[in-house]
Amino acid sequence: MVDVAKGELRGATNRYTKTLGDLAGLYEDEEAYRALLAEMGDKVVYEVTDYKPSADAGDMIIGVTRMLPGKVGREFFLTRGHIHANPNRPEMYYGESGHGLMLLESPAGDIRTVEIGPRSLCYVPPYWIHRSVNVGPTELVMTFAYPADSGQDYDIIAKAGGMRSRIVDDGRGSWVAVDNESYRFRPAELVESIFAKAR
Amino acid sequence: MVDVAKGELRGATNRYTKTLGDLAGLYEDEEAYRALLAEMGDKVVYEVTDYKPSADAGDMIIGVTRMLPGKVGREFFLTRGHIHANPNRPEMYYGESGHGLMLLESPAGDIRTVEIGPRSLCYVPPYWIHRSVNVGPTELVMTFAYPADSGQDYDIIAKAGGMRSRIVDDGRGSWVAVDNESYRFRPAELVESIFAKAR
Repeated sequence: MVDVAKGELRGATNRYTKTLGDLAGLYEDEEAYRALLAEMGDKVVYEVTDYKPSADAGDMIIGVTRMLPGKVGREFFLTRGHIHANPNRPEMYYGESGHGLMLLESPAGDIRTVEIGPRSLCYVPPYWIHRSVNVGPTELVMTFAYPADSGQDYDIIAKAGGMRSRIVDDGRGSWVAVDNESYRFRPAELVESIFAKAR
Repeated sequence: MVDVAKGELRGATNRYTKTLGDLAGLYEDEEAYRALLAEMGDKVVYEVTDYKPSADAGDMIIGVTRMLPGKVGREFFLTRGHIHANPNRPEMYYGESGHGLMLLESPAGDIRTVEIGPRSLCYVPPYWIHRSVNVGPTELVMTFAYPADSGQDYDIIAKAGGMRSRIVDDGRGSWVAVDNESYRFRPAELVESIFAKAR
């Protein structure tokens, strides 16, 4: 059962959490980040509960993710983001409650945003880096499914100085994607090496 | 978007339907089946709308299934049922509305039932034959995801004279699983050949 109020999968076999402190270096406003960390403490900002039957090729992992609402300066709370270690694996996200955004980036730096609310089904295509952003005032809860042999590569984002866009408060009650000033395009060799990794 | 009221995936790339006439031979009470077909006509009894990005190994198909409520004699409306043609592929079903049942059978004839209501997440393990049954008074709507290279083998059920259990009205407002009198266990060679097919 997906427990939407608690934002978790009942009967999950795994649970992991990320605290605000785990996300050091991801936000544009380092000063606002340190101030918020001092103010709220090293609190859990998102949590994943899932069911992993196996890590076999062809099997599937299903679970639930829960993200707190909030901002670091003008930038909405986000997840660390990843590409699949086996990069030609997709992912499905399904909105349960709250208002979120899937920020998608191809290895070559193409950007897409997909809004997620209750009952939206978001397909993350193979090879796309993805990060969830909570752009609403309440917790964002999503159910997900992905191939069991996907794996996660978190380093891909660090290698480019973050993702190409940042999702920030537009000052009028909504969000807007702005350029990430620290972003640098991945060299062609790096992009090619990602596509070459597909099994 | 999953449109729960319509029981479909908005923006689906594929749609297929099954009529009552397509399900000839699946129900225990042949006379009741013919009478119902004469009464209601060859009407659509279930429908699938889905998004198939590719048929590649490692990719995923996502969609929505909608089943009418009803009974043939004492037996609740069911889907044809299948094992994946690439049999070590799993499937995820997620309850949107209504009250259903996933009837699961291993090639060797082990049986499981999983009740599905709103927010239930049902994992169909690799190698298990599965069929949905609508045991409620309203439409059953489920969202699903499965590996894009799964395929469907419908013949596996016919080879055993149906599934080992039938889901029938217990006469007290609920369902009960009873033995299928036409069922015969699959020969060991057939069971082995299924496991040998896994890629």
